Amino acid sequence: MIEEKAYAAIVGVGQTRFGELFDRSLTGLVLEAGLTAIKNAKIKRDDIDAMFVGSFIPAILNNQGLIGAKLAEELGVDIPIYRCESACSSGGDAITLAVQGVMAGLYDIVVAGGVEKMAEGDPVNALKAAASETERVHGNTFTSLYAQITRRHMHLYGTTREQLAMVASKNHRHAKDNPYAHFRNQVTPEQILKGSFVAEPLTLFDCSPISDGGAAAIIVSPKLAKNFKDPVYITGFGKGSASLNLAARKNIAEIPSTKIAVKRAFEMRNKRLPKKTISDINLAEVHDCFTIEELLAMEDLGFCKKGEAGKIVEKSFKKHEGDSHVIYHTPKGDVLFNPGGGLKAAGHPVGATGIRQLVELVDQMRGTSGHPAPVKSKMALSHNIGGTGGNAVVTLYEVE
Amino acid sequence: MIEEKAYAAIVGVGQTRFGELFDRSLTGLVLEAGLTAIKNAKIKRDDIDAMFVGSFIPAILNNQGLIGAKLAEELGVDIPIYRCESACSSGGDAITLAVQGVMAGLYDIVVAGGVEKMAEGDPVNALKAAASETERVHGNTFTSLYAQITRRHMHLYGTTREQLAMVASKNHRHAKDNPYAHFRNQVTPEQILKGSFVAEPLTLFDCSPISDGGAAAIIVSPKLAKNFKDPVYITGFGKGSASLNLAARKNIAEIPSTKIAVKRAFEMRNKRLPKKTISDINLAEVHDCFTIEELLAMEDLGFCKKGEAGKIVEKSFKKHEGDSHVIYHTPKGDVLFNPGGGLKAAGHPVGATGIRQLVELVDQMRGTSGHPAPVKSKMALSHNIGGTGGNAVVTLYEVE
Repeated sequence: MIEEKAYAAIVGVGQTRFGELFDRSLTGLVLEAGLTAIKNAKIKRDDIDAMFVGSFIPAILNNQGLIGAKLAEELGVDIPIYRCESACSSGGDAITLAVQGVMAGLYDIVVAGGVEKMAEGDPVNALKAAASETERVHGNTFTSLYAQITRRHMHLYGTTREQLAMVASKNHRHAKDNPYAHFRNQVTPEQILKGSFVAEPLTLFDCSPISDGGAAAIIVSPKLAKNFKDPVYITGFGKGSASLNLAARKNIAEIPSTKIAVKRAFEMRNKRLPKKTISDINLAEVHDCFTIEELLAMEDLGFCKKGEAGKIVEKSFKKHEGDSHVIYHTPKGDVLFNPGGGLKAAGHPVGATGIRQLVELVDQMRGTSGHPAPVKSKMALSHNIGGTGGNAVVTLYEVE
Repeated sequence: MIEEKAYAAIVGVGQTRFGELFDRSLTGLVLEAGLTAIKNAKIKRDDIDAMFVGSFIPAILNNQGLIGAKLAEELGVDIPIYRCESACSSGGDAITLAVQGVMAGLYDIVVAGGVEKMAEGDPVNALKAAASETERVHGNTFTSLYAQITRRHMHLYGTTREQLAMVASKNHRHAKDNPYAHFRNQVTPEQILKGSFVAEPLTLFDCSPISDGGAAAIIVSPKLAKNFKDPVYITGFGKGSASLNLAARKNIAEIPSTKIAVKRAFEMRNKRLPKKTISDINLAEVHDCFTIEELLAMEDLGFCKKGEAGKIVEKSFKKHEGDSHVIYHTPKGDVLFNPGGGLKAAGHPVGATGIRQLVELVDQMRGTSGHPAPVKSKMALSHNIGGTGGNAVVTLYEVE
């Protein structure tokens, strides 16, 4: 049923280790990931009809534009290669553009990739390109904008720094056995709370790191999927926009683009398949660039009402003390967020993140992960946002 | 016939004036173009399902990424907005991604836009992002790479500086009545030859300028086209890649990606419609970032054999002395290149160029141009390349 109604199928995945990879080049990272995905899918390089690569600021950090041509050169191919950018959701854009190309009937086998090489130049200043000019002239860094969101959430809903620390501690716990993760060390909420402030109330441990890395997936038309082992189907996606400026939003303690994106994703899915809702999701990759964003994701994706996420995290974290994973017990059912450590611990090479989320979910759903989650999932979701939510992409993954 | 078999239809176009627009903002430029296109198509802002915007280096020159969110904010919309980048062909990518979205059945009415605000910061150095690291470390600017291509073409085929000067002089002549053009002044081949060298043998007048500007088009699904006045159909497109490094190519006096792109465009078209070839094109927008590139385009698109373009330009230029336009008389028939002045005289705000080419052709084909060309065209072509040809996009336009 799903096979016939899906929009596309993922048949191969790959990623590099995430971290400070000073000896690696920008395109070398996405090539490594791409070649791993090609091998994983058991296809040949020449089978690929097109590529879609997400990357945020290679022009600033690596002085490099036109990375499509660099990839064409290194792979020795002349196929269409698109680069897309929407800050931290550039990878999510690459997935959805790849699926659009397949849906258009133009390509049968495509690569969706993502890459960022951030540990050179001045990444903290460069990241301000994801904010608006108005925000930059007031001296905001990217972290300070999320600090304002956090303060507002605390003020409106009573969210505590302890609850945020539990998100970070949980994601480090999930990364413990993930060989690709930037951070596999374990941190307790107490240690996190004692971290130095980057922008109050966010400490160093509330922030995802500056990482290098690449990730890639082989996406094929549904009719080809049966020729591959263990395909994971894309049954819907949604992309939403919101104002770049936080000041232009009604409530900065929510991400309106997330709400629109998840709505569109389920609409696209349910147009073709028997209705499912957020309650059917028991595994998700959500965009925890800062700890507060994991709470916002839980709320804005619809797992609970606005303002409830902090308490759900606290209760679930305490319940799973000593367990390998923390499952969130939400009003919409039990769900595991970020089984590989999320952006917080797996790392956040900006353009690669949306694809890394897909790779993690596919490995978990296929049962091929080196760090298996204690959840069997038939339907999972990835949530990838750009900037402070000016863009959001939600993608739905299913297996028969 | 075309209406039923086309992949998409253009029903509205708009562009800003091109030039040094110090008082305008990056997103303001593309908004002006977009609102003009919306008005031209007689639609409402809320009719738009998605946007695709090409831009090269706003992150370097304007410190701005995530321009989709900035546009969403200024327009007050929450639709999917994609940004794509392939250096100077970012606009061409936006057109083809917009058509892919329509072909996928996801969107009925989309905007393809492009923008660049280059007259701030250090554009000459920033443009090196379109070259490879290997080329940059040897001190190449973008012009010096094209100077090497020019020298090679002269060496292999006897092309002369006089022939190149005729390209520039012709394009200034075509821009004379174009109110949007960066340069409307007239220059003779003699003046051009006396210009100061930027990178020998290219003088200042062989180079397209550093411009600010935006352009936009409303693209709809073919089934909607009949509801609009004078639609122009997109009947095919092709996108090809080549090595970023010139040194990795067999012959630097040709652009392999152009050859692939035009082949793919006609294959896509002829799969659905009675066969046509390059001989059926009598109007074209070609990517004359430097004068040599107009010769390369004539050859690589297939209007003549490799090495013949210089002599065709010379003969045609002399034949049309005193005429408002220079029509090229090629072995594949008569064709008018760059009726609005091309990149050379109309200007080259990088991300906007591919869309400006489309706007120019649509206005000419509809008969709504303020500077009408002495050619009635039923089938036209645009040719937009990135960098020194690491990417190329060819699009075919037809009317009933």
